[in-house]
Order: sequence, then C-alpha cells, then structure tokens
Amino acid sequence: MNYYSKEITNLINELRRLPGIGGKSAQRLAFHIINMPEEHVEHLAKSLISARKNIRYCKICCTLTDEEVCPICSSDRRDHSTIMVVEHTKDLAAYEKTGQYNGLYHVLQGSLVPSLGKGPDDIRFKELEDRVRDGLVKEVILATNSSLDGEATAMYITKKLKPYNLKLSRIASGVPIGGELEYIDEVTLSRALDGRIEL
Amino acid sequence: MNYYSKEITNLINELRRLPGIGGKSAQRLAFHIINMPEEHVEHLAKSLISARKNIRYCKICCTLTDEEVCPICSSDRRDHSTIMVVEHTKDLAAYEKTGQYNGLYHVLQGSLVPSLGKGPDDIRFKELEDRVRDGLVKEVILATNSSLDGEATAMYITKKLKPYNLKLSRIASGVPIGGELEYIDEVTLSRALDGRIEL
Repeated sequence: MNYYSKEITNLINELRRLPGIGGKSAQRLAFHIINMPEEHVEHLAKSLISARKNIRYCKICCTLTDEEVCPICSSDRRDHSTIMVVEHTKDLAAYEKTGQYNGLYHVLQGSLVPSLGKGPDDIRFKELEDRVRDGLVKEVILATNSSLDGEATAMYITKKLKPYNLKLSRIASGVPIGGELEYIDEVTLSRALDGRIEL
Repeated sequence: MNYYSKEITNLINELRRLPGIGGKSAQRLAFHIINMPEEHVEHLAKSLISARKNIRYCKICCTLTDEEVCPICSSDRRDHSTIMVVEHTKDLAAYEKTGQYNGLYHVLQGSLVPSLGKGPDDIRFKELEDRVRDGLVKEVILATNSSLDGEATAMYITKKLKPYNLKLSRIASGVPIGGELEYIDEVTLSRALDGRIEL
C-alpha cells in the first residue's frame, strides 16, 4: 500500500481494528477526519482518551460510569427495592429509553458462557448476591438476553437467589411488536404460545 | 440521556458525527473503546491528531500526502508523460490497487457540481493546466466518476485542454465484470453498446 502516504495508511489501519469498521469504512472515515477542522479532531481524540481514563464500574450496580456511584443508584427518586439484572450497560440504556422502569439495575458485565468455560466468577454475580443479602431488595427481575447464554445465566441466578425471601421474575419472551409471524423462528413462536395472556 | 454517564454520552455524541456512524454503531464503538487497553486508545487518538496535522496536498498532483511531493510524483520508475485525472485520493488508490497503471495522477479534490454552483475555481484544475502547459505531458486520461458531475467535469477539462497538443482520453463505461445484464441500468447498457469493441 504505497499509494497512500504513511500517515493515512496508519490511520486507516487503526480505524480498521474497531468493530464493524471494514476497509472501505476505515478509508472513508480517515478522509473525513483529515478534512475536519483541526480543533474538532483534537476534541474527538481527547474524548477517546478521557472516556477511557475516567470510566469505572459503579460501586453498587457495576454499570460503567465516571462516578463512584452511578446517577441511577444515587437517585432517591428510584425504587430501591427492585433490581433489574442485565448483561451490559447498553441493555440498561435500552430499558431506560422506554421510561417504563423506575427501579435500580445490576449490570453483570457479561453472561455465563458454558461453551467457553466462562463461569460465575467471570461476571458480577457476587456483587448482586451481596446486594440481595442486605435484605432491602424485594424483587429481582432477570433481563439477561434471550440467547442460550443469557438463559443459562438467568437459570443460574434463579437457583442461587431462590433461598432469599424475594420475588424473582424473568422478562417475557414472545413475538416482537410489529413482527410478522411468518418471519419469526419456531422457538420464539412456542414461547409466545406458552406465555399467552388471558384476555 | 442521563442513563449513561457524561463521559460515555460525550464520546457517543462525538462518534455519531462521523459519516456512516449512526446511534447504535456509535454506542458499540464507544463501549469497545472503553474496554480497550489504555495505551491502544492513546495510540488511536494520536493517529487521529497526527494524520490531521501532517497531511497536505502534493505540490505537483494535489493528492493528500505527508510530504511536499508525493511518492508517485517523485518516483523515477513512473511514466511522467501520462497523467490520469481523478476526483479524490481514494480514486487514485483504487487505480493503484489494479497495478495496471504506471503513469502519474492529478487529483482534482472534487468535481464540478453545476447544481450547487461549484465551478472550476473550486477544484484543482488550474494546477492541472499548469502541468500540461509545461509541455512534458503527452496523454491525459480522464478518470472522473461516471456520475453527472463527473461527466460534466470531464467535458469541461476536455474543452479546456483541447488547444494543447496532447492525447486526451476517457476511461470506458460499460457493464462491470461479473455484472448481470438484467440488473444493470439502461444508461450503462447503452454505453456498453456504444463502446463495443470489435473482436
């Protein structure tokens, strides 16, 4: 590749390492960046470094945040007796966008992956059990993904938290709103049937 | 958006400004960056700033480069009597990848866009005319895009360079290799017919 100068080639290679950025996208991004005002590029570069440097896990719910305790855990407007367990911070964000949930979260930062030997010590489960043991929690809602790993994680947590005196629930599986039945896989359809609600 | 901490929100917003990066991609990239080793993030940030700072236009062909004269223009293995005119540095790269061209380039850094009032002074045409006037050039190959603007640019350059005593050519339009006729638009099909080659 000597048709691009060293600086451009270097930048394209750096961008290609990012997830979802192939050769063509990396090239387009590189040329866009080269044509951006210099102060915008500096600003972008600073945001990268600053986000990486200042991010840590919330002491309570283990979400990614830049404070010791995240804004949700430290809010007194939220219902502190309910915890929704999710795999990642982006899942928390997905539920926050609905505006329909007012409890707290617990972010596992992953899921059990039995096929890769990823077990309970590789996710933030111990921290969840500590919160439950405190006795203030009345309900734990399991909102891990409906994938094989997510289901295994939900089953594991159910088994572990059963001994504590609290309500345990799992978010519903079924046909997504707007989904057309003919395009939906059989497992989802069976789940939707099993979970039918009387009208 | 108070469900992400300030640092993450800030990073996502910065990434969303880049071309082809929507909300979901920006989020995925941000979480990837937060989980990267700190020195990788610093390296990426430095590449951005360094590429932006050190890039300039080649004094001869106007391509983006980090030297005064780009590697192609300063090579004595290339045929300095032929110039291929392209719109952007990435078009130059596309032709270099073929390995089939051994002349020099001229990068216009854009095309005429009559509909937006973008005229000859907005592209690097004057620099091309200066090179032609020197008299060393024997052939100019017009390889602007086959879009409306690219064609207009090629026509304009043809008119302007006609008075100079040189060979002027336009790259062929036609059916791309591997293209199936039924999916190709009529204009391309007509062009392919007009440009048919006797066997």
